Amino acid sequence: MNPIEVTIGIDIGGTNTVLGFVSHDGQCLASASMPTWSQEPAKKYFIRLHEKIEETIGSLSVNVVVKGIGIGAPNANYFHGTVESPPNLKWEGVTHVVDILHQYYDCPIAITNDANAAAIGEMVFGSGKGLKHFVVITLGTGLGSGIIVDGKLLYGADGFAGEIGHTIVDPAGRVCGCGRNGCLETYVSANGIRRTVAEMICNSTKPSELRKVSFEECTSKLIYEAAMRGDTIALEAFAFTGEILGMKLADTVAHLSPEAIILFGGLASAGKLIFEPTSNSLERHLLGIFKNKVKILPSGLPEGNSAVIGASALIWHEIDRVI
Amino acid sequence: MNPIEVTIGIDIGGTNTVLGFVSHDGQCLASASMPTWSQEPAKKYFIRLHEKIEETIGSLSVNVVVKGIGIGAPNANYFHGTVESPPNLKWEGVTHVVDILHQYYDCPIAITNDANAAAIGEMVFGSGKGLKHFVVITLGTGLGSGIIVDGKLLYGADGFAGEIGHTIVDPAGRVCGCGRNGCLETYVSANGIRRTVAEMICNSTKPSELRKVSFEECTSKLIYEAAMRGDTIALEAFAFTGEILGMKLADTVAHLSPEAIILFGGLASAGKLIFEPTSNSLERHLLGIFKNKVKILPSGLPEGNSAVIGASALIWHEIDRVI
Repeated sequence: MNPIEVTIGIDIGGTNTVLGFVSHDGQCLASASMPTWSQEPAKKYFIRLHEKIEETIGSLSVNVVVKGIGIGAPNANYFHGTVESPPNLKWEGVTHVVDILHQYYDCPIAITNDANAAAIGEMVFGSGKGLKHFVVITLGTGLGSGIIVDGKLLYGADGFAGEIGHTIVDPAGRVCGCGRNGCLETYVSANGIRRTVAEMICNSTKPSELRKVSFEECTSKLIYEAAMRGDTIALEAFAFTGEILGMKLADTVAHLSPEAIILFGGLASAGKLIFEPTSNSLERHLLGIFKNKVKILPSGLPEGNSAVIGASALIWHEIDRVI
Repeated sequence: MNPIEVTIGIDIGGTNTVLGFVSHDGQCLASASMPTWSQEPAKKYFIRLHEKIEETIGSLSVNVVVKGIGIGAPNANYFHGTVESPPNLKWEGVTHVVDILHQYYDCPIAITNDANAAAIGEMVFGSGKGLKHFVVITLGTGLGSGIIVDGKLLYGADGFAGEIGHTIVDPAGRVCGCGRNGCLETYVSANGIRRTVAEMICNSTKPSELRKVSFEECTSKLIYEAAMRGDTIALEAFAFTGEILGMKLADTVAHLSPEAIILFGGLASAGKLIFEPTSNSLERHLLGIFKNKVKILPSGLPEGNSAVIGASALIWHEIDRVI
């Protein structure tokens, strides 16, 4: 049997690194994961990563040809092939990820941040198929974004375009990890919604099962489950989160005039609870000429492997452009 | 002598229409203007415009070859070659400007809104020469913007991208002509700064020569002159205007990561009074990775003819791309 052409998608997260072998039609043939070990120096990490890739190739039941490696990582710079001072890892200074992996693999290798990888994944395999202008919002611990303009990822002057999570909701608002105040991700993200719950618990006297839960234990999953049981504070927290997101996305539309905005990641799996208030708020805040034009869509990538498929799409997209 | 190749730049404003014959090196060889007459039907307007163009060609002291016609107009759609319900004109519904002018002229004709024309003008002949990623903010009665990504104007899905004047500063803020509240242009524009003066006159007890002036008489030129004489309210109004503009431009940078932002139009000619607070506020509000990277530049187009040269550049830019 002919070998199957695959690209390797690698998602480097603060806790785990996941890799997968993805075929040209977006099927993840096999995946594996290893702990990232945030205290480990980059050099040792990539020795382990190489071993893990080889181990996984060895365990495949089919023959594959690796056409390239795509990587999604925090603070990645596509132009330079680097990761610069990632917030949750002890990799010092600038790590030349693409150069390091080229010591092991003689194939196209590209890296970008995880939200950009998600955007390219949606364009190649997901809800962005056939669209030329769209924005992907990734709702994880923080809020990331990837912007597609005219069928291409928007990198801007220095490769760092698409930081919608750090647009400002309120310059005197919540302290953000970036050192400023009132960034969108302090309101709209897994961490943002639990800050909202804490604020609502403080400001209102409404009963809520979440009053029994500490801030650290109060995950977005737990808030979702409480909302599904009809908990008022949890429901109001989702409504508020969507209200803020929709308002700021109206600014995004005023800049970019996209066809669609795709919500991706943990918080987006709350479905109607987050999509409905976001969509209502967006429409209410949009300039007239944009009203009823911009779709809010869920991710079209398979839930478990979306990050890996996104990273792999970085290479498939480049191969397809050359063909 | 060989005839000189020119494009005709036409700037359709609410009060006046200005046209000019612009050579390939950006020189305006001759210009003319006529009243727009906002109550006149579009059909009659374009008969007058054609006559004005022919009259101006007849008066030229050199022979010219017209290579194309570029038009800047409010609510113009580049994709459709139309103007749709312009706010200050009585042109009903959709006016097919490009089709109408093709009845008279057999050459490339393109139309876009005035801020997009300014952006292309800066790219071809002005401060954007050599830049790939920048934003032009036009500070007139309102606030317009044109966005250049990768050396091309960003039109978005429907041709209406770049409405930064209608991003939201405060959803409960000043009523905007667009029917919403708190749009950037209600704070940052010739009209915005006089609303700020009115607010400051109300909220403070500081003496100001502007207390003697009615709202309608209080032009941005008058505020500028008062500021140059040291008037506290006028100075504070400029500082506030720059503060708000810088804060919102930080959001623009977070989306687009441009190399520069060019301030264009009446209010920008206040120089340091507007550039300094804008630049300070932008730097203070920028996400770390963008700090000290984005230049705030004045327009590089000659003041009197900037709109006409911008409109003409729409065609020169297309001719240059084809060559």
